[in-house]
Amino acid sequence: MAKFLTNRDENYAKWYNDLVIKAELAENSAVRGCMVIKPYGYAIWEKLQSELDKMFKATGHVNAYFPIFIPKSFFSREAKHVEGFAKECAIVTHYRLKNDEKGKGIVVDPDAKLEEELIIRPTSETIIWNSYRNWIHSYRDLPILINQWANVVRWEMRTRLFLRTAEFLWQEGHTAHATREEAIEETERMINVYSEFAENFMALPVIKGYKSENERFAGALDTFAIEALMQDGKALQAGTSHFLGQNFAKAFDVQFTDKNGNLDYVWATSWGLSTRMIGALVMAHADNHGLVLPPRLAPVQVVIIPVFKNSEQMGRINEKANKIRENLVSKGISVQYDNRDNNTPGWKYANYELKGVPVRLVIGPRDLEQETIEIARRDTLEKKTLPVKDIEDHVVSLLDDIQNNIYNKAAEFKKKNTFFPDTWDQFVKTLNETGGFIMAHWDGTAETEEKIKNETKATIRCIPFDSPDEDGKCIYSGKPSKRRVLFALSY
Amino acid sequence: MAKFLTNRDENYAKWYNDLVIKAELAENSAVRGCMVIKPYGYAIWEKLQSELDKMFKATGHVNAYFPIFIPKSFFSREAKHVEGFAKECAIVTHYRLKNDEKGKGIVVDPDAKLEEELIIRPTSETIIWNSYRNWIHSYRDLPILINQWANVVRWEMRTRLFLRTAEFLWQEGHTAHATREEAIEETERMINVYSEFAENFMALPVIKGYKSENERFAGALDTFAIEALMQDGKALQAGTSHFLGQNFAKAFDVQFTDKNGNLDYVWATSWGLSTRMIGALVMAHADNHGLVLPPRLAPVQVVIIPVFKNSEQMGRINEKANKIRENLVSKGISVQYDNRDNNTPGWKYANYELKGVPVRLVIGPRDLEQETIEIARRDTLEKKTLPVKDIEDHVVSLLDDIQNNIYNKAAEFKKKNTFFPDTWDQFVKTLNETGGFIMAHWDGTAETEEKIKNETKATIRCIPFDSPDEDGKCIYSGKPSKRRVLFALSY
Repeated sequence: MAKFLTNRDENYAKWYNDLVIKAELAENSAVRGCMVIKPYGYAIWEKLQSELDKMFKATGHVNAYFPIFIPKSFFSREAKHVEGFAKECAIVTHYRLKNDEKGKGIVVDPDAKLEEELIIRPTSETIIWNSYRNWIHSYRDLPILINQWANVVRWEMRTRLFLRTAEFLWQEGHTAHATREEAIEETERMINVYSEFAENFMALPVIKGYKSENERFAGALDTFAIEALMQDGKALQAGTSHFLGQNFAKAFDVQFTDKNGNLDYVWATSWGLSTRMIGALVMAHADNHGLVLPPRLAPVQVVIIPVFKNSEQMGRINEKANKIRENLVSKGISVQYDNRDNNTPGWKYANYELKGVPVRLVIGPRDLEQETIEIARRDTLEKKTLPVKDIEDHVVSLLDDIQNNIYNKAAEFKKKNTFFPDTWDQFVKTLNETGGFIMAHWDGTAETEEKIKNETKATIRCIPFDSPDEDGKCIYSGKPSKRRVLFALSY
Repeated sequence: MAKFLTNRDENYAKWYNDLVIKAELAENSAVRGCMVIKPYGYAIWEKLQSELDKMFKATGHVNAYFPIFIPKSFFSREAKHVEGFAKECAIVTHYRLKNDEKGKGIVVDPDAKLEEELIIRPTSETIIWNSYRNWIHSYRDLPILINQWANVVRWEMRTRLFLRTAEFLWQEGHTAHATREEAIEETERMINVYSEFAENFMALPVIKGYKSENERFAGALDTFAIEALMQDGKALQAGTSHFLGQNFAKAFDVQFTDKNGNLDYVWATSWGLSTRMIGALVMAHADNHGLVLPPRLAPVQVVIIPVFKNSEQMGRINEKANKIRENLVSKGISVQYDNRDNNTPGWKYANYELKGVPVRLVIGPRDLEQETIEIARRDTLEKKTLPVKDIEDHVVSLLDDIQNNIYNKAAEFKKKNTFFPDTWDQFVKTLNETGGFIMAHWDGTAETEEKIKNETKATIRCIPFDSPDEDGKCIYSGKPSKRRVLFALSY
């Protein structure tokens, strides 16, 4: 166990925060609730962005950029939307500073008050649909399939690095369609893109489903979500896709002429995934030694560390290591050769374990003689010595193995920690003792949902798409239920 | 000439604005001074980002992300810095909206006033150097070579799409060094990266030099810039790199222990390039038919257009076109095949000329019989018919030709429009009649610079690095001068 980390099993929350800081993913800034994403954390975000962006483009989307400011009046047009976001938004009221006449230093110039306040986007439906009004006239202008990579601000009171911050980075897709069916199809397509991304790249098994009315996005008719299970038994919402119906088209008067010459409001979707995912990567896979990064999102996939006693040895090892590095790089693998002489090999081992680098190669004096190399994998911490001639092929297949193993381990954990209580006592006991995904019957009312939340803090994470039909009784009210839904404590 | 465009020679400013809108690069938003970057404009930005990012990484830089908010007190710490930016910044004063009790709708909640106002970053030196204080203790922590891709806000009163907007996108590098020399070297390295980028990718010949004291970045000891000449004879600053000395380290108390155990302040640079460059691309190369994009930054490099009379012909052309498209794509070329049947070929020709797509291929019924294809280049509008078997190799070399030709044309224009007046009359006459780059002697005083600006609006764009030693007399004061400097009207 890395000595400088809190033990994961003793204090999960502190372990998480320690790890994010020690692994140099992010840190708190001087601005309340805002984080600095440090280069190593940002490099993970860049990998994630690059892969997701390819998936968006492969499904026909293009990127664009809309203003960060939303006039207050726009924000207010969709009633549920403003209700959902009004309590947590940053508001720009002035546009100039000046030197105080009474010598109090730099102050806000009262003469530079905006006529209408501007909200910093917490999400961009309103400003985007106001633009779409001018872009859409006929069915020939549809669909519009736009994504935006941007920063957004939600003035959260309790913040945690990556999981909940006042400013965060995300992508937000905003699409416009001629029919209800097409919009629903798009909503489904994008939740599938997210779940494929989570499973194939983040090595994160997820449950796909739709949200109960209480948990829907403010302004949506339906919200689809993917939910992942963290190692402390809490759920984390890892991406959402919203069917917005005609709500925003009506709020911004976006109508089009359909194929039959009739005027109708446009159908909308929106979908987003944020830097929160980096928190999910940490909480789903990391251990007491540090991060465990899935190879497909690891900024450095292989680190090579030399062990030497003198400069003659170092020279020979450098030569060998550089050759291996070049060969691996030519196979598309990202490799770091750390031959800095100001840290011991032992310090480096611990450091790259902390950083979650999937594969470590070590070359020492004996390896030079015997034409061997030591290879260690981060996920299991196993190591072995191999003939150097086999190393490149071995690394390629090992990276795949590690990706799969991390996924399988998380899937196994999820399976073990999914429970099917049939009584309220079992439900409460499971929540208190193990947490996890709790599949239970629910009577379908917001009232019961609310009571369960008040008594246990558990919420309905989603109504899984693949939850089978099953007659049962609501865990709380005893009323009839046709299927189980997913409850959990959540981030 | 595209009929819907203003003539470039009649009203350059209107031509520019028309073109940006008609080519769907950007449009004004409902928020004063903020633009919407539309998908085609954003695709150019993505190409530009991708190429520049590679160049930054090849020179050892990494990306990170710092908060968008800067506490007012940070902003005020470097005196010249705040003086430079205080008059044009967006200020967040509140963090919550509420329903007005008197029924006036949604209003700012006066109870949610921030203790300290937050400035939306116009540039990030202050928030970044406040973080660097905790990152830097010893010379071993240096250099720090960080870049950030971000949005920034400067509350400009007169805005123009891409050239000057309240919010814009940019990258800002912020580096920290142990010595003055290293910092100056970095400042030079990055202005060289910008000029290579401008010349090799944007096909934009530039003049590199340092700014006069008046024109320096607020807080810099020295500012290096690249200046490009637009087709209306005005200069456009296309990237700046600042040597900040120890100003920000002193303002934020960032000290380090050097190799000899002495405590010293850290040396800094910063450098930035923005979405303004898209405006430069338009103004440097476009013509009365529309955009002329350099192939290396064109989102679509080749468009294929079919000409057919019936569906049998269309089927055969589709087959041929798809094969050509696949072959070109396999060579790394981005190709669009536009076989939509709701527009005529003529409409499509004009449209892709407007969009500046470098190469157009047309396949008609006669081409099917004769195994030929028509190829047209956007830069010269020349077209010819070639055997279809040669087309792929031809396109590859033609894209290079076009890139070079666009550069050479701009270089020729710059040469023809660089003047060396020796008298004040000549100077004023050149400014009034042709504009252009004006290389003239200057006595080196801020006073003279100011007077010239007041009388003619011309400013010293830079003191070129490669301006040869030459004894002369100041164009304005007649006092002795050792070299010519670059004057121009500017954007």
